[in-house]
Parts: sequence; C-alpha cells; structure tokens
Amino acid sequence: MGGARSGKSALAQQRALESGLNVIYLATAQANDEEMVARIARHRAERPAEWGLVEEPLALADALKTHAAPHHCLLVDCLTLWLSNLLIAGEEQLDRETRRLLDTLPSLPGSVVLVSNEVGQGIVPTNPLARRFRDEAGRLHQAVASCCDRVTFVIAGLPLILKDPPA
Amino acid sequence: MGGARSGKSALAQQRALESGLNVIYLATAQANDEEMVARIARHRAERPAEWGLVEEPLALADALKTHAAPHHCLLVDCLTLWLSNLLIAGEEQLDRETRRLLDTLPSLPGSVVLVSNEVGQGIVPTNPLARRFRDEAGRLHQAVASCCDRVTFVIAGLPLILKDPPA
Amino acid sequence: MGGARSGKSALAQQRALESGLNVIYLATAQANDEEMVARIARHRAERPAEWGLVEEPLALADALKTHAAPHHCLLVDCLTLWLSNLLIAGEEQLDRETRRLLDTLPSLPGSVVLVSNEVGQGIVPTNPLARRFRDEAGRLHQAVASCCDRVTFVIAGLPLILKDPPA
Repeated sequence: MGGARSGKSALAQQRALESGLNVIYLATAQANDEEMVARIARHRAERPAEWGLVEEPLALADALKTHAAPHHCLLVDCLTLWLSNLLIAGEEQLDRETRRLLDTLPSLPGSVVLVSNEVGQGIVPTNPLARRFRDEAGRLHQAVASCCDRVTFVIAGLPLILKDPPA
Repeated sequence: MGGARSGKSALAQQRALESGLNVIYLATAQANDEEMVARIARHRAERPAEWGLVEEPLALADALKTHAAPHHCLLVDCLTLWLSNLLIAGEEQLDRETRRLLDTLPSLPGSVVLVSNEVGQGIVPTNPLARRFRDEAGRLHQAVASCCDRVTFVIAGLPLILKDPPA
Repeated sequence: MGGARSGKSALAQQRALESGLNVIYLATAQANDEEMVARIARHRAERPAEWGLVEEPLALADALKTHAAPHHCLLVDCLTLWLSNLLIAGEEQLDRETRRLLDTLPSLPGSVVLVSNEVGQGIVPTNPLARRFRDEAGRLHQAVASCCDRVTFVIAGLPLILKDPPA
C-alpha cells in the first residue's frame, strides 16, 4: 500500500521476483481513456517480459482461483482500480465481488502480492461518489490487511512495515 | 489518528475497553444531514451498549472537565469534526475552545482517548476554507500530540506507534 | 517529508540547528498572492535571525552548488513549491532542473536538509494538472529519497524514520 507514485508497484514487483516463483501479473486497469492507456503501457514496460499477464477488471476472486498454484506468485495491481470498477458496475457486484475476494484470499495456494492505493489521508472530498469510494477503499484495506501475512506501506519508495509474518 | 475508514475508531474503542475503566463516549458529530445521521447510527451500533454517551459539538474542554474522573475513560470521537464545527462557529470560538482543550488535557484525571482524522496528505485543496481547515487540523494535531502519552497512526486497521509512554 | 502543517519544517529546522554548521535557508516560495505572503512571513518569524537566506524558485541545483560548503547546512523549504514553480515554468525547465538536482545532490559538501510535502495520499484529483503534479511529486520523492542518508516522515509533529544513515 502507498500513495500515488510512492513506489508501491515497484516494491510489489521486487517482492514477486524475490518469491522465486513464476509470476503472473493480474492487471485490473481498464484502458478507457488516453491517460489510462499511457499509464498501462508505462507499467507494462517496467515489468519483466517473461511474466504472465491476466487482465480482469471485475471478477478478481475467480481470476485468483483460476491462476493460483503452489509455484505461482500472483501480483494484483491494483485493488483500488478494481474497487473503482466495481463501484461503477453497481452495488450488487461490489458486494458480491469484495465478499468473494475476502473469502478466497486465505485459502489460495502459492503467493499473492496485492497493490493498493492509500486515498483516505487528504481532505474530505466534496463529491459524494469520491467520499463513498474513499470509505469503501478504507474498509477494503482493513479487511484485506487482516487476511495478509505481511503489509507494507510505501512512502517515497521506502517501505514501512505495518504487519510482519510471524517468525 | 488515521485516514478515512482506517480503523482508527475501532482501535480507540479497543484501547478504551482495555483501560478497564468505565467508558464514556464523547461524540462531537452533529446530525445535520442524512449522511451524518447514518454515520452516527453506524458508529453507535458498533459500540458496547453499557458505555455512557455525551454529545458535545463545541465546548469539548468543558465536557471533558465535567466527566473526567479517576475511574473514567473518556473516548472523544472525533477531534476533526469538533474542529470543523468550530470553524463554522467562528474565529473567536475556534481560538478559545482549542486553547481551552490544550490547557485542560494535561490535568485531567483518569484516561482520555482522542480520535482524529489525518487530512493533510493529499493534494492542496483549491477551496480556501478546505485549506484553512487542513492547516488548523495539522496545527491541532501537533499541539495535541505533544500533550499525549501515546500517539498511534492507523493504516488499514494496523497501528503504527508514533509516540509511546515512557517505560 | 510530511503532510500539511505536520511539523516538517520545524523538524527540519531542528535538524539544521543540531548540525552545528552555519545554516543557510533556501526558500523556494514565490510571493504571488496574499496567502503566500502571509505564509512566507510566518515561516520567516519562526527561523533564527542569524541564518542566511537565499531565495530561488527555479534554479535549485545552481543555488545549492553556489552555497554548499563543508561548514554550511543548506535547508531547502520546500521541494513541493519548487516542483510546482517548475510545472508552471514548462516541461523543458521541469526536466532539466529535476535532473540537475538529482545529479547535484550526491556530491555536495556540508549538509543539506530538504523539506517536502506528501500530497499523494488523498483521493485522485479530478483536475488533470493536480494529477500530474501529484505524480511528479511522487516520482521526485522516490528519486530524492534514494540520494539521501536519512528520510523522516512527520505526522502530528512526531518523526517516523523511513531511512537511517548506516551506522
């Protein structure tokens, strides 16, 4: 987790490399406008070419179940975009897919690295949808963090350990 | 302290429970619109039923003095709403009430747990009032933190110790 | 580094004082409007009168080279305003000056303390320029942090060590 351009994706990629497993990059971004197309291309160029790529904007739990394996490291980049896709898709999908993610995460084989954006430390947004998104992101982060062995916050490319695997 | 939906209120409630004292919840929220009514109701449902409840949107120092006692833990949720109420109430009240809080805090008997929102880590707001609020919140956090024995920042439900009571 | 009114300038000034060197304050702010004039005056009043003052909104690397010396501590406040001045000045200057800063920093004699604002932990701004600024600030922070011996994040006046000089 980290703020915008904090180096969180780079750290996640390093963690995935260090796992020694076959890395599958699970992209949640949708190329809806020019800015996103450029962002996706930039992220792609920064990744090792041998990594697998799966694109899934909504059904994340299914994609994780399909691709998880003892010799796989799944790198999800990022939860924030997935959440924002779900908010646009509607309440029913939002509820179902977030619940399915939380049900699925603890039982997956292999390794999973999740990237997400901190969005709740600025001023309260005036836009009700932005407020809703901020609240949902906060709740998701709490729920996901409680499922993870390790949680790292990234500031200026530097990791801050929030939760560490038991020794 | 923490961002939106970071789990800061839940941590504060846990700290209040662990104090072993009689907990009095000091709410600063004003139910001015539907969204706030829903938020207040949700917070209420998450609290133990036996806790006392005091509602005080402005005169926080007075409320703390009235209810503080060696066997009480006062849980204030939250300073950010209180500050925003004071900004609306006007400069004079803002000055007086923040000064009174800082004068009162160090001498209160029993235990006090304060919840506040980090709002200063986003982009500079274009709205001058939002900028003012952000500056006042930052100053208040610094002043209050210097009075407290323990300061914890919460990210994704996970505590980050900023200040610890001397052993 | 830290959010708005987090106490980051005060901590930086304390670090500069503790260096025991002659402090030169390098201000990047431009007094373009009343709010900035007031902010600059307030910052000035908080600084020791014997400190040197250099004002440079754009050519930061040059200013650092000119004033750096083994017995000097240069205190730059702040990188965020400098970056915002460069974004207004145009792409060419932005590219050149940020590159020059990163080239210059590692070889300067004496001590350098840099202040910068975390702006990437709020909701994604709707304004494209604000998004751009947020991205550039994040990239700059990563690059600068990798050049520094010590990086401290400040929350509510309390330091959180992100990077420490090797013992």
